[in-house]
Amino acid sequence: MKNTKILLTYILLVISGITFSAVSEKPDIMSEKSKKCVSCHKKQTPGIVQQWGDSKHHRAKVSCYECHAADKSDKDAFLHKKEYISIIVSPKDCANCHKTEVEQTENSHHAKAARILGSLDNLLAEVVEGNNEMVTEGFPDGNSAAAVSGCWQCHGSQVKVGEDGTLDPATWPNTGIGRINPDGSEGSCSACHARHSFSVEQARAPETCGKCHMGPDHPHIEIYNESKHGIQYASQKGKLGMDKSKWIPGEDYHTAPTCSTCHMGATKGQDVTHDVGLRISWNNRPPVSIRPEVSDAKMGLPGANIKWDERRDNMKDVCSACHSSEYVDNFYVQYDELIKLYNEKFAKPGLALMELAKPLLKPAKFSNKIDWIWFEIWHHEGRRARHGAAMMGPDYTHWHGTYEVAKHFYAKFIPALEDLIEKGQRSNSDKKVAAAKKLQAGLDAMLNSKNHKWYLNKLTPQQLEIRKKATEDFKSKYK
Amino acid sequence: MKNTKILLTYILLVISGITFSAVSEKPDIMSEKSKKCVSCHKKQTPGIVQQWGDSKHHRAKVSCYECHAADKSDKDAFLHKKEYISIIVSPKDCANCHKTEVEQTENSHHAKAARILGSLDNLLAEVVEGNNEMVTEGFPDGNSAAAVSGCWQCHGSQVKVGEDGTLDPATWPNTGIGRINPDGSEGSCSACHARHSFSVEQARAPETCGKCHMGPDHPHIEIYNESKHGIQYASQKGKLGMDKSKWIPGEDYHTAPTCSTCHMGATKGQDVTHDVGLRISWNNRPPVSIRPEVSDAKMGLPGANIKWDERRDNMKDVCSACHSSEYVDNFYVQYDELIKLYNEKFAKPGLALMELAKPLLKPAKFSNKIDWIWFEIWHHEGRRARHGAAMMGPDYTHWHGTYEVAKHFYAKFIPALEDLIEKGQRSNSDKKVAAAKKLQAGLDAMLNSKNHKWYLNKLTPQQLEIRKKATEDFKSKYK
Amino acid sequence: MKNTKILLTYILLVISGITFSAVSEKPDIMSEKSKKCVSCHKKQTPGIVQQWGDSKHHRAKVSCYECHAADKSDKDAFLHKKEYISIIVSPKDCANCHKTEVEQTENSHHAKAARILGSLDNLLAEVVEGNNEMVTEGFPDGNSAAAVSGCWQCHGSQVKVGEDGTLDPATWPNTGIGRINPDGSEGSCSACHARHSFSVEQARAPETCGKCHMGPDHPHIEIYNESKHGIQYASQKGKLGMDKSKWIPGEDYHTAPTCSTCHMGATKGQDVTHDVGLRISWNNRPPVSIRPEVSDAKMGLPGANIKWDERRDNMKDVCSACHSSEYVDNFYVQYDELIKLYNEKFAKPGLALMELAKPLLKPAKFSNKIDWIWFEIWHHEGRRARHGAAMMGPDYTHWHGTYEVAKHFYAKFIPALEDLIEKGQRSNSDKKVAAAKKLQAGLDAMLNSKNHKWYLNKLTPQQLEIRKKATEDFKSKYK
Repeated sequence: MKNTKILLTYILLVISGITFSAVSEKPDIMSEKSKKCVSCHKKQTPGIVQQWGDSKHHRAKVSCYECHAADKSDKDAFLHKKEYISIIVSPKDCANCHKTEVEQTENSHHAKAARILGSLDNLLAEVVEGNNEMVTEGFPDGNSAAAVSGCWQCHGSQVKVGEDGTLDPATWPNTGIGRINPDGSEGSCSACHARHSFSVEQARAPETCGKCHMGPDHPHIEIYNESKHGIQYASQKGKLGMDKSKWIPGEDYHTAPTCSTCHMGATKGQDVTHDVGLRISWNNRPPVSIRPEVSDAKMGLPGANIKWDERRDNMKDVCSACHSSEYVDNFYVQYDELIKLYNEKFAKPGLALMELAKPLLKPAKFSNKIDWIWFEIWHHEGRRARHGAAMMGPDYTHWHGTYEVAKHFYAKFIPALEDLIEKGQRSNSDKKVAAAKKLQAGLDAMLNSKNHKWYLNKLTPQQLEIRKKATEDFKSKYK
Repeated sequence: MKNTKILLTYILLVISGITFSAVSEKPDIMSEKSKKCVSCHKKQTPGIVQQWGDSKHHRAKVSCYECHAADKSDKDAFLHKKEYISIIVSPKDCANCHKTEVEQTENSHHAKAARILGSLDNLLAEVVEGNNEMVTEGFPDGNSAAAVSGCWQCHGSQVKVGEDGTLDPATWPNTGIGRINPDGSEGSCSACHARHSFSVEQARAPETCGKCHMGPDHPHIEIYNESKHGIQYASQKGKLGMDKSKWIPGEDYHTAPTCSTCHMGATKGQDVTHDVGLRISWNNRPPVSIRPEVSDAKMGLPGANIKWDERRDNMKDVCSACHSSEYVDNFYVQYDELIKLYNEKFAKPGLALMELAKPLLKPAKFSNKIDWIWFEIWHHEGRRARHGAAMMGPDYTHWHGTYEVAKHFYAKFIPALEDLIEKGQRSNSDKKVAAAKKLQAGLDAMLNSKNHKWYLNKLTPQQLEIRKKATEDFKSKYK
Repeated sequence: MKNTKILLTYILLVISGITFSAVSEKPDIMSEKSKKCVSCHKKQTPGIVQQWGDSKHHRAKVSCYECHAADKSDKDAFLHKKEYISIIVSPKDCANCHKTEVEQTENSHHAKAARILGSLDNLLAEVVEGNNEMVTEGFPDGNSAAAVSGCWQCHGSQVKVGEDGTLDPATWPNTGIGRINPDGSEGSCSACHARHSFSVEQARAPETCGKCHMGPDHPHIEIYNESKHGIQYASQKGKLGMDKSKWIPGEDYHTAPTCSTCHMGATKGQDVTHDVGLRISWNNRPPVSIRPEVSDAKMGLPGANIKWDERRDNMKDVCSACHSSEYVDNFYVQYDELIKLYNEKFAKPGLALMELAKPLLKPAKFSNKIDWIWFEIWHHEGRRARHGAAMMGPDYTHWHGTYEVAKHFYAKFIPALEDLIEKGQRSNSDKKVAAAKKLQAGLDAMLNSKNHKWYLNKLTPQQLEIRKKATEDFKSKYK
């Protein structure tokens, strides 16, 4: 919450007869202030006291006050039973003991997730889906309930504090992973480490990641669940020893990896990392997939200096706990080829055609049907194909992925473009007629290119021969 | 099954040497009649005998005959190995021992679920999706297989009994929660308490509710699974003590709540209830969300006298096992705001425009494309948004919810209205021309209202300023 | 991998001091060659060594070399630490010990899954979604990454081996169940029996089947999960004794069945079978459901001689572990009626209209919007309805099934046909005008038939009376 908290904690611990450093030495006694908290909350909110009772924090005598103590000058400090405390325990607070983890998180995309405010997705929730009718003390001009209960719950809110130190209801409850806290820090450790048991078993579970990494635009948990990895996890998770302190695949467990194993977990050669991008060799978020160092550079993150192939080597090191290098190398050939197919066949031509279509569109973004069609092709379906291939979920790669991309590209996107062309050509505006002509030329060029001319029934004789042979071969198998 | 069953059971228990009241006193011996059942069914259907062996019923010596005994005059009684029995054990039968639970259920929406017969959804299954070609003894005029294997399996069938006492195949197998039984009672306890172990662990599991509370129109289980509550449950359900008799959050468990915890479970201050609506403060079923006492009044239920704020207090009492009152109050601000946004921005204008569109539609409901579009906006997507917010599942609130609502509102509903207007204006019928004019006026008024004028690119200068600032802020973060 | 492997294994086992037959007698010692493998792979890929350590193979001293040994002449043999081995262990190899299981699998649709190459689905992945830009040693003319990471991962690749004995990355990693192996055998045991623990608990888990039996076109795992069977499994899977050797429902477990219980598992009267079609009485794959013996005959499988009613009796025998014959018979009435409804109301008329529409379509399959509409009606939604009814998942039967079928039939398919008719009538080609006329006549005839005339608001007075009564009855319940 504030920079002076360590000092404050130190002082209060001295007062209670134990020093701060004692906390890391697992003191035998619990602070008097925390005892006071517990004595009341045992009755008021018994569940969280018992959760804490299950936690390593309890065993280490890190109790209520050690985390919730606040300085009077903290934005969100309030006087409660004669003590200044704050509700939000920010990464800055957690860093008192978990410095490395917090630093790693701060350098990751996770901590920057709230930067989506102002982006395209935010236009959707703020304006298209929403309005500014949710007026609170922190937002006198109003805010969108669709953003508050939607986007912000994963991406994080910018927490506002009322005059009386209470948290603004538009911004809290919120454990979005990129939450901007009253003390200015970015992130929310409890996004993954659920209060108040902070169970490592829970943090390592794929469902934890699935709170946000799910749904039409990034169905990571669904892909994991259909993958061999997820199948093994589902059927035998009791054998994973998920509460072990040391948890190295191949040494401490071998039944299956969870999300955490591959993207964050320790291996024989690597430490645990809380920078989730360090083993990822493609960033599949944008319309056209890019290398992670490129997006890190854009965001001013230190990852700008860590090239994709170094990250891939990090991942391969995880794979090697169970897979031969031939397996892993071949997998990456398959993955890269799928990205290339998507990028070249659909993403780049689609972007170019949307650019050509612009003069023919109504000015407000998302007031044109084609805005939605194109958005879903790359943001929903195109991601599903790419993520499906990344994590070996064939149904997501194909039926939820490339199949949907192709369907919407050929049966929705192209007809919508043709519609724009037709209307443009009939327009009174010379500009529009010219734009329609240009769009028509662009569309024709694309449809006549090797990737798309099947649509015009213009397969080359050689291609036709291959297809014919395949069909005959198929039919012969069914006599 | 019948009113005289208690007497009958009493008599037969006397004959077998034990009295009925003995059953509730946990007799040491099992009835002779049930022993006869078991001796044969051990071989015929061994699974259910073993399930019963696992059950509390077994421990209490409540065996086959105690539940399946029937009076000769019962509609569904049939002679089986010299005894009159019935297959269906109705709530009336269960009430012999479980009176309170049955009464609570009877007062709830659960027991009234079969009243959907004749509703809009039923038109779909009976006519649009189906036909009346499934002819059975109970339905000589035929019935729709889509209703039988679809709707009725959750909502409940009206069970028909054949001349020979057998159950009509159109109506059974069926454990729909609002089943109308041969004895006239409404409900099916085995909808949730699966035969024949009647395991409390199973009844309390979220998957049990998920049999019906899932899918495009009410994805409660999916929302739960993505919520913090569901995540905790998934990763640590072994710690919930789900088979405990006393099962109070904060006392007997604290890792996570299940559906049952919040909507039905005992707390320190409340008893278990089988009336699932008593903690719900919005009814999100209709196009526009209403208060639960309003829908209870419509259905003639005693809940008509229990206002939404009393119900909300009931729920807050559950929350308080783990959450502070500030957390809970703020959550309800978020939830209410989302309902308001949906109701005001989409539901009410949508309903009004559909009313104006009526004269321009083909007469048969669902023969117009716009019938489907509007139906899904409120029945599928609008519910998902509202339910998602109710249970803190951000992906369902946004991507499956408000995003889809907005997409279909702007990219399907409005274009379909424009299409109707255009066709109406070109019509030969004066009535249609007038209706088209009225619809155009209504549509124009809506599009020019504050919630929708972004679509016409008519944001106020102030709104534009806000958006511009947000975009610049966003871009600056990516340099 | 090759025919001589048994001999080779025999020889090497003799050399190592144990004979091959000793393997099936659970020798006390492990072969020297395998010890060598382990000594290195313990460090290189420790996970798989530990998995094998958990397996029955380990207990039986069937170790690395016993399965991976290859003959020098094998296509995929390569020299590794002075021994010829191959990466792929094919069904032929597994048959050394598991002859019956491999034979049964070979006779099943599972082993023939790669025959999809050349089919309609393959056109999608090869041409529409893909291209031939994935050039590898095995595919100098290129291949489609959408097929490689999509279709083939479930259906199986035709494995290609490079000059140096390495496996072509387009074809491996691949555990598709119909994989065509370098030795010519069809199938992949590790599709279900995940390497290297080969845990029976995992193979019996529904999630294992869910790797492929999921998604928009065959959501078997989703249907199971919402069914009573799945609910019981989810909440109490610890009670199923899934690692027992003898695993007979009603004897060894009784809480719930998994996919494997019903489709493959032993009963008191039947042995385990690896021919998954022997208990299935409808093949719901094609546009119109057919009997399984018909499709087996088309594929030249021995199942051609096993009629559907015999297969149904096999399944009923499984059901009877827990359900009465009345229950089971009635269930099948419900199931059959749903198939009939779908076949007669939607599938057959749809196929006939598509045939009439052909002359009006652009020549390239899937370049017409209606191609996609019709494909999804039968391949996606129609299957969901049928599979939902087959496995008692009411939401899949209705909301994901018949509802979607009807919606797309009436709100997409018919308008698309009307559009084709209109364009055809305006055409300069006499042929097209004639075709449009014929299509119009076909459409009119269908819409005026009893199943569809509701769409024209032409319900018979009797039908109208029924609907009116139902609506009044419904309204009276809500007063």
